[in-house]
Amino acid sequence: MPEDNVIYVGNKPVMSYVLAVVTQFNNGSEEVVIKARGRSISRAVDTAEVVRNKFMPNVEIRDIKISTEEIEGEGGQKANVSSIEIVLGLKR
Amino acid sequence: MPEDNVIYVGNKPVMSYVLAVVTQFNNGSEEVVIKARGRSISRAVDTAEVVRNKFMPNVEIRDIKISTEEIEGEGGQKANVSSIEIVLGLKR
Repeated sequence: MPEDNVIYVGNKPVMSYVLAVVTQFNNGSEEVVIKARGRSISRAVDTAEVVRNKFMPNVEIRDIKISTEEIEGEGGQKANVSSIEIVLGLKR
Repeated sequence: MPEDNVIYVGNKPVMSYVLAVVTQFNNGSEEVVIKARGRSISRAVDTAEVVRNKFMPNVEIRDIKISTEEIEGEGGQKANVSSIEIVLGLKR
């Protein structure tokens, strides 16, 4: 399952995503990817920073990518939304 | 003035920051840095994506950094806030 180490950040409190990331690493993942769209992007950055600064100093940011996704609204109209992908990995 | 090509993203509409970035490039900057903190981070990502996708296809993302800054609240209490720095540059 290649998507197994991906954490999608939404509207829950930051700490629930921090816990999810830390759990992934503790379960043996060598790399965890944090993804978010729209207004949740700030929360994704918070998640990465809290993991790194408060819980796992042995984790580093390997890559950060931003992009634009097209989403379909309720009425079928299309809108663009920005997204972010933060790749965290164990320091080698 | 080393900070001359920095655009700070706050609470205004995305298009006002897009315009600021495009103006910087049109004034001869080879590189423009977009900075934001806290909830404005999503807007900074939107700004970079709109510049790149709608206005300046010859601009690329050179680097993205995230970090944590300590800010002092009104009562003197300290809080951590995440920040982002997106470096845009003309494609070579």
